[in-house]
Amino acid sequence: MILEVATLYVKPELMPTFEADFVKASQFIAQAKGYITHELQKCLEQENKFILMVQWETLENHTVDFRTADLFEQWRTIIHPYFEPKPNVEHFVCVYPK
Amino acid sequence: MILEVATLYVKPELMPTFEADFVKASQFIAQAKGYITHELQKCLEQENKFILMVQWETLENHTVDFRTADLFEQWRTIIHPYFEPKPNVEHFVCVYPK
Repeated sequence: MILEVATLYVKPELMPTFEADFVKASQFIAQAKGYITHELQKCLEQENKFILMVQWETLENHTVDFRTADLFEQWRTIIHPYFEPKPNVEHFVCVYPK
Repeated sequence: MILEVATLYVKPELMPTFEADFVKASQFIAQAKGYITHELQKCLEQENKFILMVQWETLENHTVDFRTADLFEQWRTIIHPYFEPKPNVEHFVCVYPK
């Protein structure tokens, strides 16, 4: 299992609609091959900062399968206009607890 | 419920013992007031990068109760020598799913 962590900065003028549009976009990622679960966490220290965490069965389910799927375009069309700069995305494996 | 996210860079020469010492240190944070759970995630893109995620009942359980507790000194003594630079710590609230 792989954890995708995307660091998101939402354009301040778009903050009022971001969370509702994130809910709409969620239906698309949730249908992706190898998708397990995802969550959106809002930072307390920086008002327009969020982290998106997505659990995938494998790295390739995110980097290959999802990014080349029509679902990605539907997801991206809704949420990518919100971000400035472009999201930073990294992948992690859980080492504790095993 | 509050999610603490600490971004950790382990000194490369100390990588061989970090994960075992993290397990030893975990017993101290796990006894803290308001502690719910924690996990350590290892980055696939940067070998010495990790994220520590701790669920707390309240923000103050981390920033006040834990940081002023003897348990924090025991936790810190084991793991802080591993990090360079100093960990960046932020707090988040889950906005999806509600």
